[in-house]
Formats: sequence, C-alpha cells, structure tokens
Amino acid sequence: MRIESDFIGKREIPKDSLWGIHSLRAKENFPDNTQFHKEWYMAVGVVKQACYKTYLDFLKGIDRKFPNQEFPFQLFDKNLIENLNDAADEINLGKHFEHFIVPAIQGGAGTSINMNVNEIISNRALQQAGENCGDYDKVDPFEHANVFQSTNDVIPTSLKVATIRLLQELEESINNLRLQVEKTESNYRNVLRIGYTQMQAAVPSSYDKLFSTYNNALSRDWWRVSKCFERIKEVNLGGGAIGTGLSIPRFFIMEVVPNLRKLTGLPITRSENLSDATANQDGFVEVHATLKAHAVNLEKMVADLRLLGSDLFQNRELHLPQKQVGSSIMPGKVNPVIPEFVISSAHKVYSNDVMISNLSGQGCLELNAYLPSIGHALLDSIKLLIAANNTLAENLFKELSIQSSSTEENVLYNPSVATALSPYIGYHEAAKLAKEMKKNSCTILEANNKLEILSNDKLKELITPEELLKLGFVLSETINTK
Amino acid sequence: MRIESDFIGKREIPKDSLWGIHSLRAKENFPDNTQFHKEWYMAVGVVKQACYKTYLDFLKGIDRKFPNQEFPFQLFDKNLIENLNDAADEINLGKHFEHFIVPAIQGGAGTSINMNVNEIISNRALQQAGENCGDYDKVDPFEHANVFQSTNDVIPTSLKVATIRLLQELEESINNLRLQVEKTESNYRNVLRIGYTQMQAAVPSSYDKLFSTYNNALSRDWWRVSKCFERIKEVNLGGGAIGTGLSIPRFFIMEVVPNLRKLTGLPITRSENLSDATANQDGFVEVHATLKAHAVNLEKMVADLRLLGSDLFQNRELHLPQKQVGSSIMPGKVNPVIPEFVISSAHKVYSNDVMISNLSGQGCLELNAYLPSIGHALLDSIKLLIAANNTLAENLFKELSIQSSSTEENVLYNPSVATALSPYIGYHEAAKLAKEMKKNSCTILEANNKLEILSNDKLKELITPEELLKLGFVLSETINTK
Amino acid sequence: MRIESDFIGKREIPKDSLWGIHSLRAKENFPDNTQFHKEWYMAVGVVKQACYKTYLDFLKGIDRKFPNQEFPFQLFDKNLIENLNDAADEINLGKHFEHFIVPAIQGGAGTSINMNVNEIISNRALQQAGENCGDYDKVDPFEHANVFQSTNDVIPTSLKVATIRLLQELEESINNLRLQVEKTESNYRNVLRIGYTQMQAAVPSSYDKLFSTYNNALSRDWWRVSKCFERIKEVNLGGGAIGTGLSIPRFFIMEVVPNLRKLTGLPITRSENLSDATANQDGFVEVHATLKAHAVNLEKMVADLRLLGSDLFQNRELHLPQKQVGSSIMPGKVNPVIPEFVISSAHKVYSNDVMISNLSGQGCLELNAYLPSIGHALLDSIKLLIAANNTLAENLFKELSIQSSSTEENVLYNPSVATALSPYIGYHEAAKLAKEMKKNSCTILEANNKLEILSNDKLKELITPEELLKLGFVLSETINTK
Amino acid sequence: MRIESDFIGKREIPKDSLWGIHSLRAKENFPDNTQFHKEWYMAVGVVKQACYKTYLDFLKGIDRKFPNQEFPFQLFDKNLIENLNDAADEINLGKHFEHFIVPAIQGGAGTSINMNVNEIISNRALQQAGENCGDYDKVDPFEHANVFQSTNDVIPTSLKVATIRLLQELEESINNLRLQVEKTESNYRNVLRIGYTQMQAAVPSSYDKLFSTYNNALSRDWWRVSKCFERIKEVNLGGGAIGTGLSIPRFFIMEVVPNLRKLTGLPITRSENLSDATANQDGFVEVHATLKAHAVNLEKMVADLRLLGSDLFQNRELHLPQKQVGSSIMPGKVNPVIPEFVISSAHKVYSNDVMISNLSGQGCLELNAYLPSIGHALLDSIKLLIAANNTLAENLFKELSIQSSSTEENVLYNPSVATALSPYIGYHEAAKLAKEMKKNSCTILEANNKLEILSNDKLKELITPEELLKLGFVLSETINTK
Repeated sequence: MRIESDFIGKREIPKDSLWGIHSLRAKENFPDNTQFHKEWYMAVGVVKQACYKTYLDFLKGIDRKFPNQEFPFQLFDKNLIENLNDAADEINLGKHFEHFIVPAIQGGAGTSINMNVNEIISNRALQQAGENCGDYDKVDPFEHANVFQSTNDVIPTSLKVATIRLLQELEESINNLRLQVEKTESNYRNVLRIGYTQMQAAVPSSYDKLFSTYNNALSRDWWRVSKCFERIKEVNLGGGAIGTGLSIPRFFIMEVVPNLRKLTGLPITRSENLSDATANQDGFVEVHATLKAHAVNLEKMVADLRLLGSDLFQNRELHLPQKQVGSSIMPGKVNPVIPEFVISSAHKVYSNDVMISNLSGQGCLELNAYLPSIGHALLDSIKLLIAANNTLAENLFKELSIQSSSTEENVLYNPSVATALSPYIGYHEAAKLAKEMKKNSCTILEANNKLEILSNDKLKELITPEELLKLGFVLSETINTK
Repeated sequence: MRIESDFIGKREIPKDSLWGIHSLRAKENFPDNTQFHKEWYMAVGVVKQACYKTYLDFLKGIDRKFPNQEFPFQLFDKNLIENLNDAADEINLGKHFEHFIVPAIQGGAGTSINMNVNEIISNRALQQAGENCGDYDKVDPFEHANVFQSTNDVIPTSLKVATIRLLQELEESINNLRLQVEKTESNYRNVLRIGYTQMQAAVPSSYDKLFSTYNNALSRDWWRVSKCFERIKEVNLGGGAIGTGLSIPRFFIMEVVPNLRKLTGLPITRSENLSDATANQDGFVEVHATLKAHAVNLEKMVADLRLLGSDLFQNRELHLPQKQVGSSIMPGKVNPVIPEFVISSAHKVYSNDVMISNLSGQGCLELNAYLPSIGHALLDSIKLLIAANNTLAENLFKELSIQSSSTEENVLYNPSVATALSPYIGYHEAAKLAKEMKKNSCTILEANNKLEILSNDKLKELITPEELLKLGFVLSETINTK
Repeated sequence: MRIESDFIGKREIPKDSLWGIHSLRAKENFPDNTQFHKEWYMAVGVVKQACYKTYLDFLKGIDRKFPNQEFPFQLFDKNLIENLNDAADEINLGKHFEHFIVPAIQGGAGTSINMNVNEIISNRALQQAGENCGDYDKVDPFEHANVFQSTNDVIPTSLKVATIRLLQELEESINNLRLQVEKTESNYRNVLRIGYTQMQAAVPSSYDKLFSTYNNALSRDWWRVSKCFERIKEVNLGGGAIGTGLSIPRFFIMEVVPNLRKLTGLPITRSENLSDATANQDGFVEVHATLKAHAVNLEKMVADLRLLGSDLFQNRELHLPQKQVGSSIMPGKVNPVIPEFVISSAHKVYSNDVMISNLSGQGCLELNAYLPSIGHALLDSIKLLIAANNTLAENLFKELSIQSSSTEENVLYNPSVATALSPYIGYHEAAKLAKEMKKNSCTILEANNKLEILSNDKLKELITPEELLKLGFVLSETINTK
Repeated sequence: MRIESDFIGKREIPKDSLWGIHSLRAKENFPDNTQFHKEWYMAVGVVKQACYKTYLDFLKGIDRKFPNQEFPFQLFDKNLIENLNDAADEINLGKHFEHFIVPAIQGGAGTSINMNVNEIISNRALQQAGENCGDYDKVDPFEHANVFQSTNDVIPTSLKVATIRLLQELEESINNLRLQVEKTESNYRNVLRIGYTQMQAAVPSSYDKLFSTYNNALSRDWWRVSKCFERIKEVNLGGGAIGTGLSIPRFFIMEVVPNLRKLTGLPITRSENLSDATANQDGFVEVHATLKAHAVNLEKMVADLRLLGSDLFQNRELHLPQKQVGSSIMPGKVNPVIPEFVISSAHKVYSNDVMISNLSGQGCLELNAYLPSIGHALLDSIKLLIAANNTLAENLFKELSIQSSSTEENVLYNPSVATALSPYIGYHEAAKLAKEMKKNSCTILEANNKLEILSNDKLKELITPEELLKLGFVLSETINTK
C-alpha cells in the first residue's frame, strides 16, 4: 500500500495501482457500475499524446528562438514529457484499461475521467523512469500530465475522436450490410409478391422492389453517417477551462490540433470559437439524431422480415436462417432472434437519444456538466448499431431464402392482379375478372378462361412481372388490347 | 339535410356541408379533438392542383397525338377538371378549413385526410357548376377528385410541401433572432464577466463571448435547417398505392411532380424509387431530429439568460425585459416568462421527437400507417420553434440590458483574475495575489498595492478586457514583465 | 374599443371582450396556437367559486363574531363577491370559453391562465352589475377576483380537479370496454387456436384465453386508474404564493378546501404540507405514468387484433369490423383504422410522458414553472385514452367476429397438439405422431389412424378443448391411457 | 477443448467452461458488450432451485401415492436433481458469473439467459458427480436442468424476484436518505430565507420548510416503492411456454410457487391467469414509472441544492460538502458533482422508461420478446437510484451546512417582509415600508425607524420566524396591532 492525499485527507492505495486518490474519490462518490467505453479511454490517450508532442515542439522552439532565456513560469524537462508521451501512447493502444476505475455515470464534466487518465500516465511515467507509483513530486498528475490542458478541452475533444473513429467503423458495417441486401435484391429480381399496406393486401409488387426499399434506406443511412463527422470535427483543444486559452501559450493553442490531426489521421480542426465549442453540445445531438434515423430504418426492415418469416404469414414465402435453438421447452422451435436483437438495439438508441437531448439542453453558461453521460450514450448507440449491422449481414441476410415457386402462385390468386389490367380492358371488365376470382377462389387465368375477356396469350403477356412492375402504363399500349 | 351512403349504410349530412360521409365516419371513428394543422390542409390543395393541371395536360396531349381515339378507360371532361382545380386552389389558400372535420390523431395513413379534402373539392366543384352538394354522380370524390391519385402518394407529398414551406419560415425566424443576438453581442463587446462552469466561478470571460456562443449555435441551427429540405425533397407523387404507379399513365407520373414544383416554387423532385419513398419515413426522422438540435440550443440559451437574470444571481448584471405582470398575488413581481415559454416549447419538440421516431420505426412493408401522427408532430414542432424564435427576438433580446458598471467591478474582486497573470509573474506570485484577495475580499489592485508584485500600470495593462480575453499568451510578452 | 393599461403601457381591447390586457400580453408573448383544455378552464371556475363561497362565510363569521369592528385591511362587499361567484359558476359550466385566449404552451406557472379567468370573471361581474367591461375600479381582476388566491394555489388545485373529473370518465370508459372484451371472451369460449410466441407457432390455446389476457390487463388498468386520484387529492389551495399562506386569513385556509370538496363532490383534502404541495409535481408524474401502463396494454391488444385480422395471417380466423372505406384508390380495401388510432394515441401518451417527467424534474425551489405544459399533456393523455377506449368498445369489439369452424381445423393440423399428449403416451410416441403430421400435412387423427398409438375415442377425448386447455396434467389420469 | 453440437453443427468449447454451445451461439448472434445484471442471474438460480425442490417433492409424492407405478413419461433420479439443486444454489449465491457470457441486449424472450444458466447448472452437476463438462448424456441442459420449465416462465419470474429484492434495497436507501434530510430539516428549523418562484424572490420562508418539501417527497417515494412489489408479485412459474401448463404435472404447477416463496422469503404468489402473466408486461411499466417519480424528486431536490450552493447565488448561505478536486486546471475549484451524478442518474432512469414502455407495448400475442431489454433497463434504474440515494445521504447531506447568520440578514433586507405585515397594518402602510426599503436598500427595522409605522417591539415580534411562518393570520390578532 502507498499513501496518497488530497485536500480532504489521506487514503491508502494499492502499491502498484496506476490509479490514485482522485480516481478513488470518484469511484466512491459515483457508486455506479456501468463500464466506461474503452474507445473513449483510448481517445483520451491520443489527445494527451498530441499535447505532449506539442509541448516538445514548444521546448524545441524556445531552444531555438530564446536560448538561455528565463521565463516567469517553469518549463518541464524533455525526458519527463517523453515519458508521459509513451504512457499516453499505451493508453491509445488500450493498455491499462483495468486501472480505469471511474464508472460511466458520474458527476462533473469529465474531471474524473481526465484525472484517472492523468494518474495512470503519471504512474506509468514514474515506472518507466524507475520510480515508484505515487511519487508525484517527480511526475505530477496535475502539473505535468495535465500540462496546458483542461478537462473541459481534453474530454470533449477525445469524445469527438472516439466518435469519429467509431463512425468510420459504422460506415463500413452499413456498406457491408448493403452489399448483402443488394445480393438478396438481385437474387429475387422480378419475383412477384403481393404488396401490403396496413397489413392488408394491396396490389402486386416484387421481392426485389421490397429489398430495394431497404437498400435505398441503407444508402441514405450510409450517406448520413458519412457526413456526421462534419458536425463534430471542430474541437476545442487548447481552449482551457472555458475556451479562452487562459494561461496557455498561443503556440500550444495553434499547434496542438494539427498535431492531433496528424496522430489520428482524422479530419479534425480547431473551432474558430473555442468558447462556443466548450459550451454547446448540439453537434452531438445532431449526430445521435442522425443515428436514430438509421435505427428507424433497421427496425422497420427487420420487423418486415420477421413478419414475412412468421408462422402467421399465409403460405410463407420467406425463410429466415435458423441461428440458434429457439425454445428450452418446444423442440424444433426457432425464433427470429436476429430481428429481435436489432429491434432491441434500435430502441436502446431511441432511449439514448432522449437522454442526450435532454442533458444537452441542460448545459449551463460556459459548460455542460453532463458530457460523460452524453458521450457514453452516444458511443453506446454507435457500437450497438455496428453490432446490429454486422449480425444482420452475417447471420440474417447471407442465408435468407425465398421460395419463388409459391410466391407467383399466390399472386395469380389475388384479385388485385385484375386491377392491373384496367388500363387495357377498362375498369368494368377488370372488376368482372376480380369478382370471378373472389367468387371461385381461382386464378386470373382460370377466371379469364371462363369470362373470355382477353386472349390467353395477351393476358399472360400483361401479367408477367415486367409488365406488372413497370412504372405506370403507356397510353399507346392500351389501344386495341383486346 | 342530404343523404350520403357508403358500404356501411346511409347518413344524414347538413345540406351545404362541404364534407361528406367519409369525413363523418372518420370523425366518429377517431374521437380526438386535436386540431389538424392548416398548413398541411393547404398543401393537400396545391398537390391536388398539380394533379388536375397534369390531367389537363394529359387531355391536351391526347387531343394532339390521338385525336378521336377510343381508349379502354374513361376520360373526364375538361370543364369538370377545371372546376376541381379551382376548388383545390381555394384549399391551397386556406379556404373552407372549417369543413375539414378530421382530427389530427387518426387511424389510416391519411385516407381520411385525403377523403375529407376530396369531398370538399367535389362539393365546391358541384357548387361552381351550379349543382347541389352531395350530387356525386356528377362529381365524385373517388373517381374525379382523386383521379390518378392515392392517399399514399398525395398525403406524404403534401406533408413534404407543408414542411418545406414552414422550414423556410423557420429559417427566417432563426436569422431574425440571430440578428438580435448579434446586436447584443456588439452592444456588450469586451464587457467583462466571470465565466462559470458547473455553476461555480471559473475564470474571466466577457458578455460578448457568451453571446457569441449563442450566435454560433444559431448559425449552425440556420445551416442545419436550411439543409433540411434536401432530406424530404424527393416525393412519391404519381406512385399510387405502393409506388408502382399501377394503372396510372406514365405521362402523368412523369409530369405531375414538375407541375407541383412550378406551382409551389419549391425544389421538389420525383424519387427515383417510388416504393422506397412510399414505405420509408427516415427523412422525417432526420429532419425532426435536426430541429431537436435547434431546440436544445434554444433551451440552453434561455436557461442561461434566466439564471443570469435571476434574483439569485450575485450582483445581478443582466436584466430581462419585463413583458407581463408576473404574479396575481405578489405586486411588482415579474417572471422570466419568455425563457419559460421557450423551454416548454423545446420540451414539446423533444417529446414530439420520441413519437416521430417510434412511429416511423413501426412502418410495415409497403407503407407506414402512422403518417398523420408523424406529420402532425413534425409541423407542431416547426411552428413552436418559429414561435419561440419570434418571441425571443421581439420580446426578449430587443430590450435585454446589462449593467456594465457593476460587471467589471465583480471581475476585479474575483481571485481568478490573478490566475490570468501567472504566465507573466509565475504561478506562485499569482497565487499570493489570489490568496490576499480572498483573505481581505479586496480587488486585485488593492492586493497588488499591498504586495507590490507588479507596477500598478503594468497590472492595469494586463487586466484590460483585451488582455484577459486574447487567445492564450504570447511567449515573448512574458519576458521581463515585472 | 376600450383602453386597458398595465405597468408596460396602454392597449386597446374590444369593447365587450371579457378578456383584458393581461390575457392579451400572454397571447402576444406566447405565440402558440395549441388549444387550452376546456376541462381545466372549467375547473378553475369551480376552484374560484370555492374561494368566493369561503369569502362569504368569512364575512358572515366576522359579522357574527366582530360586529362593527374595524380591521387594518379592507373587506369587500357581499354583493360584489356574489357577482364574482355567479361568474365563476358560469365558467365551471364551460361558458365564455371563447374569451379564454391564452394558449396551452405558455411561460409562467399559470399566471396567464389565472389572469385570463380573473378578467373574464371581473368583466362578467361588471356586466351583471350593469357596469361596462374594463371598469376595474369597481371590480378588479387582482384585488377582487383573485382575493386570497394565488396562481400558485389556484392553478395546481384546478388541474387536480380537472384531472380527477376526467379520471372518473376514464374509469367508466375502461369498464365499458372491459364489458365488451368480456362478451367476446364468452362468445368464443373454448374455441381453439394455436398460441404464438415471437410470431412462431407454439402450443394450443384458445380465443377465450387470449381475450382473458386483455380482460385481466384492463382490470388492472381500471384498478390503477381508480387509485390515481389518491396521488393528487391533496391540494394546496389557501397556501398562497409558496404554501405559507402569507397574508391569508387562517379561517380561509381552513375552510376553502372543504368548500371545494362540497362544490365538486370530489374527495379532495388540504395537504398537510402546503409548501411541498406547491413545489413538487411527483403526483402528476405518477398518475401519468400509470396511464402509460394502460396505454401499453391498449397498444399490445390492438396490435394483436390487427395481426390476427391481417391478410397475412394464415387462414384468417378473426375479422375486424369494417368501419370506413380504406383506400381512395383500391376499391373494397378496408384497413384496421381503429387499432391504428389506438396505437397512435398510445404513442401520444408515451411522448406526453417524456415531457411530463422531464419538466417535472425541472421544478426550482418553491415552484415548478412548467405546470401549464405538464397539465396540458396530462389532460391530453386522459382524453385520448377515453377516446381510444370508447372507439374500441363501440367500433371494434361490438362487431368483432371469429370463424370458429376454421380455427379448430387449423389446430388439428398443428403438430404441437401431439406434444400435448406426451404425459399420456410418453415423449417418444408423441414425437412419432408429430413427425407423421408434418411429413404428410395431415391431422393428428389421420396420423393416429395410421400409427395406431391410441384408440380414436381416447385421442378425441384428449384433444377436446377442455383437455387441451386445463392447467397441467393430473398424474393419476396418465396411468394406463393407452 | 471439448466438442458440443446443436442442429446447426459442431463447435469447440474450452474443456472446463461451464457455458456450452447455446451460450456461444447467443454471444455470436448478439454482438453486444453490455454486462448482464448479476442480480438477475442470481435470481434465475433461486427460481430453478424452487423447480428442483418441487421435483423432489413430486418424486416423494409419487413414492408415497403410487409406489412402483409405471408412467408413460420418464422420471429422473433423485440424486441427479439434487446435484442440479446444489448448482442452482451456487448461482443464487452469485458464483460462476464469469461463465455467464450472454450480453444484456439480445434477441429472444430470454432463451439465451435460460440456456446459459441451464448449461452452467448441468456442467456443475456433472462436475459434482465426478463427470466431465459437456457430458450431456448424463445431465442434459434441456431434459434435466430445464425440467418442467420454460424460458417463458422462468425468466419473467426470476426478473420479478430480482426486482423485488432490489426494491427492498431501494426502500432502505430512501429511508436512509430521508433520515439525513430530516436531520438537516431539524438543524435549520426556523432559519429564515427568501422563497423563490421562477428564480425570482417571492416571500419569506425558511430552510426547514424547504427541506420538509424534500422530506415529504421522499416519504411519498418510500411509500410508492414499498407498494411496487404488489404490481409484480404474481408470477407465471409453472405456466410453461404460454401459461397453459401444457405437459407439466398439476402438482408441480401448484407447489413450485409456494416453494419459491419459501426459498426467497418474498411475498410471491401464482397468478390466477398464467396466460395473462406470460403475455403482459404492464406491471413492469407501472413499477418503472413509479421509480421515475422518485427520480423526478431527486433531480428537483439536487438541482435546488446545486443552485443554492452555486457561486451565482447572492450571499450564498448554503454550502455543499467538498468531495473531490473539481478541476484539473483551476486550483481550489470544487464542483457540485454529487448533484450532477444524481441528475445524470435521473435522466438515465427517464431514458430507460422510454425503452421499457415502448418495448412493453410491442408484446405480441402470447409473449413479449423484449423481456431481456425491459428487465435490464428496470434493474439498471433501480441500481442507479440506490446509488444516488446512498451517495446523497453519505456524501452530500451529512456535511451540508447553512450559514444562518447571513440568512436572517438577507431576509430583513427583502421588501417582501413588509408584505407579511399587511394584515396587521394594512396594505398601504406595508407598501410604504417596502418602498422605503427598496429606495434606501435598508432593513425593515431601519425603514420603520424612519417612518414610525409600528413600535419597534411590535415589529420585531411580527417578524420573528415563528410569526412569519405560521399558516395564515388569525383575525383577532390583527385588531389594534398599531
């Protein structure tokens, strides 16, 4: 055990623990157990790397421009900063996450996140220098690890880094899913089915048309998500506590974001109004709301597939792949668990959205104290959507099948096919056919055989998938149909 | 009284009522009293105008290309269509709204909206032709008023028209508000104040900085809203029941949207995938979610102003205009009712957002049956936001005032000013000043007088608003400060 | 036109308008158009009646106990108060609602509601006394109409009165619906159907069992709703601005709630802690949340019925009544509009719930400024639920029908019936039967005929509805089944 | 590695892993990382114990009543069941949780939860019997571990057990917090303060009055929460897949719930309608909604305390305890992190509430497939509220302090004190005093000294806390005040 102290008092800390007293206070003050997102933790690492890198540049510049000059403030040793930098690099790689003990739901605008990372970095730097953990006289979590930084610029900036990284993964997962949907669309081109509105049979359509609606929706989703980074690419790193850059060298303010951009390879820029970027969270609201539109499309799509694949569906045509045993009591039962997982995920996104907008609206003057909860919910949603897209592509679409034999038959029995003929034979003749079909539960071919309204060949020509599905009728083709 | 009938039976209708039996059924089936938005009603009018206009073009084309040709389907008389067109024009102008008796919350994907308008149009056309209301043999709500249309293309298209029209009004209201905020920003340039994070004093800032954060947020809002129309500009008019254009002339499908574009002057286009545009509502989700980001910014801003203008605020500097008597029992009390109205409106937007995404996710196969509720909530939000922006500009910002005399004094007494000096005198000297200020509740000038750390002139120079608010410190300026 | 003035300035008011300048200010400050609920308006009337009644009692008491005594404060004339009382009575009856011009979404904790009513009451009292509207020297909206009252006690109290009145109507509507559900349950007792879990066929059940789940859910709803009044029966009338009763005679505080109880016939009591009853809104949160449970049950039930009545359902057994034409383009299509109306209403309730809890959590110190929005949403939900229950009873359940012939056949073909035999013939024999049924798509009777596992009579006995639906199997009955 | 197989194929499983192939399928199908709540896992254990205990009773009964009788179905060996029982006991104690690999967000109504537990139990039973994990011929996860059970009765029942257990902990935490609030109330009895409505000064109140509103709200919360178990105490254990008890001995159905009651000591009963208890989730909706009322009260209370303890508050009287360093950049800054944690938690509860009601409304026919997500959110909320109450009691109220010296002075300077005198000196004299106080920023005593309206002694008597805070004025005391 080692002893650490703050303004409240002393506390015992396990000897080799990388976290320190400030992490411990947070853990005790916020008795929540929700796991903080590792992606955010890693992004704090890279943001701190950018700060240390800029500090090293700063030292280099001073050496060059003001050799041997004394300044009113203390300059830190190059080696010390390099050790901090190495530690921050480890965090960016996800190391030492088990020493991050602050829960996701917490008070403060991220001070506890920042301090837990500062403690890990300081203690790792101490270890690298052959010193003991907790020997903060040599490497201090505030003075050194946090140099020229504030929770209020590091934490929102790192949230943006983590978000943009995950958004790229989300884009990929959407494209991957689209590819599978598109394959399904191609596989079942011109396979007729009855279209349904309000769960009642409407008029003829086809499976590829249905899958094309999903494909289009996912294309919009991809486009949306691909634009999201623009809403959050402006960061406030260098702005300090409230975006005024108080007590921070202008050199640092100017260089730290370019350094972060280089380190991450992400299109990050410095906000022109750092106070605004510190105080307002509307960018996160907009990004998450955009994700919600994607969640809505996913829910709608999988609810359709579950319905079409349901035992309730008349002469079921569509079959979902069977991915796990469905019942612990009914042998052989298999359930639509992938759609259900996706719908659950979509609703988690909706509920995260409520929290994000409500807490974002409760920012106060220079800061929004709820950034940790906002950020947690945002990353939560992105990860769930990635999971949903991936499992849909892999575990649903790849093996989804449609029995096209039975689908066409179903359509031939449906009186709405007769409606499709009205431009060619007139409304009243078409109605006769439909009436006959209903009365005798027969196909349109059988009904026409009896009523002799069209030649059989002409009828067959008019009810091919191509004819039934072309957009509207062409006037000249209606002349002399009979 | 006249008698109308449907497949259920006969009903008495007031003799000159423009609504008919289908409106009455809806009113009885959906016993809600929420007023339908007039803006949507008017947009249905213009959409139907586009349909009638296209029908007239169709007739003209037939006359030209197929004179005297017989078709299997019936063509309607030019005069009849012109009468329908005139009636639709009246609806677009907002006339006869008292005959629109269908409530906002309803079953069906808009059939009752469409039928109420069809009945008004038919009866107005009958009146214009000197006939009696209800004489549907001559002008029929289905056959004529609804020709080549479906609820499922007319209603979503008209919702998009109404939305885009209101979004333009919203843009204007945001710009108008921004203008007022900008004026306030200019009026109080470099007026110092203490910045607050988490409601605790942080470091010096200024009023123009604070108002610049609002201004920036509103700029983003304007940009957002100005892009919204792109999410909903693709309409499915001409697609019929499920977007396949079944039984509709291709000429009509091709020409009706250009006609609507001309009539409205709005940048509307036909969707390349009419089935998708009929089935999916994610565009509305995205538009509304964007509005939510605006609502969040408004809530944050007015909550700030209410707090700064509150009686709780130490040495209140900011004064909200007094717009109405605040209490029925405490004479002279005036309350921040404009901020409260805005916060209430923002929360209405948040709650509308919940309904919109949940119902949008529940679309089923070819259609979403909840379009009326989705549309109502969407228009509701836009109108509330317009109202909020307008009253903020007119009734809050125009007369908002800040007592700059007391603000600068407040800053001089605040120990955080000393922190601002640390680049120039070092951390430890700055800390001494801060300590002295706290101990004696004195200004920084008085503390420095006693401790003689800086010359008075140098100190005054360093704590001018310009110095305190510049972005970071410049290294060369810190040399030899003392 | 007449002229009225407040501390801001003078305004023209239509000569006979019952509203005055304070209503006008509110209308201009809050440019929303949402209609305020008439039920709340009426309740403000009866609350004010209770106040005037108590004032009259107060005068009577003074006459008796302190005849000819002078007091430091002014006592008003009995006739004046009686005129106010008559005017308040008219409001309680719903009269003059067209003079209530304040919108539902507003700033302030109800001051504008209170003042609009105070102005109507004062002007009606003036009219009754043969004076002109606006002659407030004689009857003053503050001094007289509002005597011993505060917005902060009158408005929440009247909201509670309006809520309890509507809750009674809701109770009735639930009971009425239950009656219809119960009839359906009786009508289809022991009519077998396959039970579905996750939209996949599970094991045999019956229609009465299904309807009994709705019936039970509605019973719980009734019980819940019937208990709601207890959460809001404690009112703060008499508490004045913040519940301390400052400057209000103790006699008034003690007597006004009993008078209100007598006038309304509702079980209202005075809160023991008037400050608490003024500051906290958790009772409304709880009541609305309870309504949400009812909405959830309604949504679940009607979604079931829509699914069972859908064209997708295999061998549709259940038929929803046809209540209106379902399509403007597809003749003969009828849609499940009643379920859709109910689902829309349920989602409106969910979204109201979000607003109510968020705004209730934002109360501040002695008051919650958002009471008007909270109250509006609460009454909105209750009215929608009443509408939903009523239309369900009248327009859905009364004519709902089930084709019991086809249902039993469907069950006989379902292999899960074989599972039901396993206690009697063992798992393996039952599995053989199920396998045979699947292989040949035959009934269990046919399969047994072939496999000769049981006597036909015994089999028929074991698959009667009574046998299939009894709760579990009885050990002794399994012995020697074969 | 060992090999396990299901209908899809074979998979390698780590040799000593207690989970098996069904858990693995779930983990792969549902790529979410949210930790499942251990409390629910433990409750599944005790529910299964009740089942095994009942099975043993069943065997005993058969031995007694039907010695040597053969049955068509297989009876399992007593020792095997006892081993299962021991394993279930371990789960109830929280052991082997690291082998529970199914995530919180999942498809299916809990099948994967049930199967993961069935696999752990089977493998533990195998280990106890000296056999190898995975040797399911001897102990089978379906046949044995799940005997007479279904996911659809075990999982909702265990959720209810976990919920009631946590609710008891929540009750305790509320009472503990109330105790601390009550102490604060006592400590500051009759310490005057100005009451605020809408953040504007209203009329005099006191700190104990304010804390009494919190105390009352928490009392209601306690009462609410203490009644919650009644909404969910009826379980469907024994009902099997859809509540019909198909293929389950009636003895088991009758005895299993009493056994569970004994094992848990909780007031659990068997639902009279097991189909209803399987299909409907409104009880969970109601319970969570009740928790929301508690969350609302917590948010309101801590927002008050944060505001009163804010640096913005004029002459701050209330001081929150300092629990951790508040800034990584501003030395000495301490933030209201406990209130912020509580507000974040409250909003998590609100957002969970949205998910719970939406998913509960989407139950379908015999089952609600979203029970895992509903249950996760419910337990999440309860645990967060326990955390919030505990940290509030321990880290906020215990050391909260009010500087009563400054508070009374603040009140004496506030003109609203004059209003309190109006019953004694009349409105106009009171107004004179208030005007003088405002003009000269003096206390009421100084103003009265100048205007000589009352004797100094009488005035001091009238403005004691007792006088200012008593409920209303007593008529007789107003006579001859001067």
